[in-house]
Amino acid sequence: MSAIPEDFVNKTSALSEEVTRPFAMSKKIYVEGSRPDIRVPMREIEQTDTQINGGVEQNPPIYVYDTSGPYTDPEAEIDLLKGLGDVRTAWIEERGDTELLSGPTSDYGRARQSDPELAHLRFEHIRTPRRAKPGANVSQMHYAKQGIITPEMEFVAIRENERLDELRQDPRYAKLLKQHPGEHFGANLPEQVTPEFVRDEIAAGRAIIPANINHPELEPMIIGRNFRVKINTNIGNSAVSSSIEEEVEKMVWSARWGGDTLMDLSTGKNIHETREWILRNAPMPIGTVPIYQALEKVDGKSEDLTWEIFRDTLIEQAEQGVDYFTIHAGVLLRYVPLTAERVTGIVSRGGSIMAKWCLAHHQENFLYTHFEDICEIMKAYDVSFSLGDGLRPGCIADANDAAQFGELETLGELTRIAWAHDVQVMIEGPGHVPMQMIKENMDKELADCHEAPFYTLGPLTTDIAPGYDHITSGIGAAQIGWYGCAMLCYVTPKEHLGLPNKADVREGIITYKLAAHAADLAKGLPGAQLRDNALSKARFEFRWEDQFNLGLDPEKAREMHDETMPKQAHKVAHFCSMCGPHFCSMKITQDVRDYAAKQKAFKGVDVSVEDGMAQKAAEFLEQGAEIYKEV
Amino acid sequence: MSAIPEDFVNKTSALSEEVTRPFAMSKKIYVEGSRPDIRVPMREIEQTDTQINGGVEQNPPIYVYDTSGPYTDPEAEIDLLKGLGDVRTAWIEERGDTELLSGPTSDYGRARQSDPELAHLRFEHIRTPRRAKPGANVSQMHYAKQGIITPEMEFVAIRENERLDELRQDPRYAKLLKQHPGEHFGANLPEQVTPEFVRDEIAAGRAIIPANINHPELEPMIIGRNFRVKINTNIGNSAVSSSIEEEVEKMVWSARWGGDTLMDLSTGKNIHETREWILRNAPMPIGTVPIYQALEKVDGKSEDLTWEIFRDTLIEQAEQGVDYFTIHAGVLLRYVPLTAERVTGIVSRGGSIMAKWCLAHHQENFLYTHFEDICEIMKAYDVSFSLGDGLRPGCIADANDAAQFGELETLGELTRIAWAHDVQVMIEGPGHVPMQMIKENMDKELADCHEAPFYTLGPLTTDIAPGYDHITSGIGAAQIGWYGCAMLCYVTPKEHLGLPNKADVREGIITYKLAAHAADLAKGLPGAQLRDNALSKARFEFRWEDQFNLGLDPEKAREMHDETMPKQAHKVAHFCSMCGPHFCSMKITQDVRDYAAKQKAFKGVDVSVEDGMAQKAAEFLEQGAEIYKEV
Repeated sequence: MSAIPEDFVNKTSALSEEVTRPFAMSKKIYVEGSRPDIRVPMREIEQTDTQINGGVEQNPPIYVYDTSGPYTDPEAEIDLLKGLGDVRTAWIEERGDTELLSGPTSDYGRARQSDPELAHLRFEHIRTPRRAKPGANVSQMHYAKQGIITPEMEFVAIRENERLDELRQDPRYAKLLKQHPGEHFGANLPEQVTPEFVRDEIAAGRAIIPANINHPELEPMIIGRNFRVKINTNIGNSAVSSSIEEEVEKMVWSARWGGDTLMDLSTGKNIHETREWILRNAPMPIGTVPIYQALEKVDGKSEDLTWEIFRDTLIEQAEQGVDYFTIHAGVLLRYVPLTAERVTGIVSRGGSIMAKWCLAHHQENFLYTHFEDICEIMKAYDVSFSLGDGLRPGCIADANDAAQFGELETLGELTRIAWAHDVQVMIEGPGHVPMQMIKENMDKELADCHEAPFYTLGPLTTDIAPGYDHITSGIGAAQIGWYGCAMLCYVTPKEHLGLPNKADVREGIITYKLAAHAADLAKGLPGAQLRDNALSKARFEFRWEDQFNLGLDPEKAREMHDETMPKQAHKVAHFCSMCGPHFCSMKITQDVRDYAAKQKAFKGVDVSVEDGMAQKAAEFLEQGAEIYKEV
Repeated sequence: MSAIPEDFVNKTSALSEEVTRPFAMSKKIYVEGSRPDIRVPMREIEQTDTQINGGVEQNPPIYVYDTSGPYTDPEAEIDLLKGLGDVRTAWIEERGDTELLSGPTSDYGRARQSDPELAHLRFEHIRTPRRAKPGANVSQMHYAKQGIITPEMEFVAIRENERLDELRQDPRYAKLLKQHPGEHFGANLPEQVTPEFVRDEIAAGRAIIPANINHPELEPMIIGRNFRVKINTNIGNSAVSSSIEEEVEKMVWSARWGGDTLMDLSTGKNIHETREWILRNAPMPIGTVPIYQALEKVDGKSEDLTWEIFRDTLIEQAEQGVDYFTIHAGVLLRYVPLTAERVTGIVSRGGSIMAKWCLAHHQENFLYTHFEDICEIMKAYDVSFSLGDGLRPGCIADANDAAQFGELETLGELTRIAWAHDVQVMIEGPGHVPMQMIKENMDKELADCHEAPFYTLGPLTTDIAPGYDHITSGIGAAQIGWYGCAMLCYVTPKEHLGLPNKADVREGIITYKLAAHAADLAKGLPGAQLRDNALSKARFEFRWEDQFNLGLDPEKAREMHDETMPKQAHKVAHFCSMCGPHFCSMKITQDVRDYAAKQKAFKGVDVSVEDGMAQKAAEFLEQGAEIYKEV
């Protein structure tokens, strides 16, 4: 299959309409911070009014976290050939601790840039790479530890709050802000996220802001257990399938539906160029697994991998702007044989590559032995570690075994080393774990890895449903998110079966968004229930359009409704196709409520069963149930 | 919309091929009990061999619980016009405590049977109804309390075991039977389910076998926390949409994908005839909400409902063979005003009908005041109670409130009364509950309702994902199943939006099957992990067809795989489209395993890292990674 069609450049200047069209009744807003260039994007969803008792009640707009970037901003000029606008360069420059390089410093980056055969693939506006000045450390953790609140930290504080501070002052939101107490399992969820709180969490290593200085297009976001639970999506071509243009479109698609970060897991052709296109157009942090590309460079022979090749790959990618690297430095030689009796052995690609290297050379994993060298690179660009779980279980049977937990302990040791370099760290986790064994994973991660943010794949809670693994894993993801996991790596319906298409990506993202939100609710994250309350009120009041618009996927909700009730009149009908007009329980309930309210107003006290039921009886007998038939 | 096409009878004699075609590599088997007419259906899934080291390892067949009824049995003659074969009549007759009636004894049943205008709709082979002899009680609970093990009890014991006793004796299953310890929260899960264990659970009220004596086509199944977690599906026409033939096809469709019980929630035209067609062709227990039909009989005016009309409806349906009735007897007058301040009021249709009746008459719910009269009817046919949660929460905000828990306490009181009549009972539960509040529901149900089986709808763990509520609720269902819920009422993607079509039904069922199975795994149900282990082993060994066939939805898994890897050769390929041939971690792992095994055989001890790594290194360097490219 050809990875790059000849008319690539022409085609990528435009995206499909479906990946960029604005959501109905929504508008992009920007909340300004302490300076005009801190402009935090949110989506404002307008609601229609409620018609009650001949009067009108206004329903206030609802603000939701917006990952979609400029793509849903009608004011923004989108040109994939130019890349996104610049969000962070001024912030980076004014810190005065970086310098512009004359060009890529990696051998590979230089070679790709000067290869005339790649001209037709190459992104035109490659940024001049930037690097920390000699001896400087440009990580957010480094600033945080010095007590510096960066614009990135302020940005995420505003973003996490979702205007909650203002809404609390607005009486229209009073009822909508009611919320059940959570069970937070030791998380620390402040009523309001301040920039100082963000700084403190970053300094302590409990959260990270993945934000490479070479990715100034980024809209900063935070990953940590004391913030909203995030989700990661994966894209990437492979030798078997997919092209650059498809990958860029998938990235925008992922942003649209709610992907907080995105990993480019390409393993096929032109990885370097694909990544450049993605980064220059990506509003979210981009992660990679550099060992995949390093392996391409040695023609797939893992035993030919060397520290030098890997190092060059790290620099190549860091200078492009990758925000976090998955590094499988915990796959130690002594853990490899512990996997021999597993049902599914080593299922992580990176893990198996490193295991193979260790066996081939009978040496310790070079990612482990060179870990401090890696830290030096990370801090020169502010790339965050995503310490890979190369020995994660690939099936229920292999969950929580000695190999998995041995590696986790090593990741804890590496976390300490990274932190000594002020390098940001998150920890990757499983995988496949039955429900009763999930909490042990979270608790052990917090203990062994010193509360560094946990970033898990699922976990899948059963192996028997190929084709539905977004759901087997969504169940586990919601639980581990509740227990304290900071970011959930999505799984699509195609997991174990094939490469996801756009429909699969959307299905996987929405599944993980709802799992992450269910976790926020269960933890008791302040304000989390607001959107549920607003949507439920809309549902109760048969404001169909509001119900759709407040949902995670308004387009699908609308389509499904229209399948059985296509007419516009049905959008305002006080019934739906499930029950038909006779049986509308919601309508009956409204009568109960009107009655209770009337009684209360009349008596100045709460309604009592014994009072006035006879009156209501008479009313009902007069009006009959026919009122429900007229609609 | 016309509910009944004119060519109905002709069309319903045949089902679509897709609802009856056998699953690939599967065959229906029957395990015989202590007498030849106890024939318990299971599905045997054949596996292909594993090719290792030039040799062949046989993979034994896997047995799975089979709800599909005779429809997937090539030996069975299916004719919807005649109905299914008879499973239970001999068992019922030999107990000698029932009598055949001359015809329906309900007024409505008689009227429908003699109405010439219904001839074209009527099922031809209506069975003569049967009833307990005067003074007799024909409930399974009644027999159980007397120490009698019925054929129904033996049937479900065999069914629950899934041949586990035999497999434990067979060395081919030794590895596959390995399983993690569960966390059962007080459930009692024996290594082997005996008929006596079933009897004891039924007698104690901890489980029910819904099995009306007028539904002899039924293949008995059990609902209780000490057995496999079950799922219920709903079908039913409404005034807005759907016809009898569609409903019958949906019933068979539901059986195919794993529905353990089925509720016919029809509220439109010809409810009586629809139900007859469904019952005569249903291998699973059928439940209804009789108040829906009673309301039809008073033209939708809930205030016109009377005990007499309701009673006639119960008898009408009991004589057709309905196995369990949802009865909203816990919606007490005093609870109704407690719902006034809810965000979504009363969302249960039955609950709102009864609330409206209570308000209209200012009287206590007649289902409550006549509860003992209802028990008299239930025990004459062995209809089980599904005590309805008419005040369940309809949104996250309303979860676990005074109305909901007040009703639950009343259901506990009613459970005691039903048990005094030896009538079987299960308790319906919510609804919409955030994760941190789910366990309270389960614990309170066990305490207040004396361990009667809990049967919940979801619960949905967030309200913000219309179009994905099978997933928001699948998350809650898996959790409450783990905590002890006995049956999970499925939710389809169309929940809140419209009537589900066949694709939605399938999606909802598989979601709930995997949630129920995740719960079984987490509880540590003996043998539950066998299918996971077999599927994972197949996955690891690239036995693609076995992986598909062992899954809950082999057809979808195969389709998804074929989307990216359509060729037959790919079904045996040692890689898949996710990673391509270079990166296959599974293949690498096999090398680790072969190596460890070789070392072990040579030394007679477990492999050690220090031993022989150099040898492995040499091997790898010889062979290189090219072996993965040749495929």
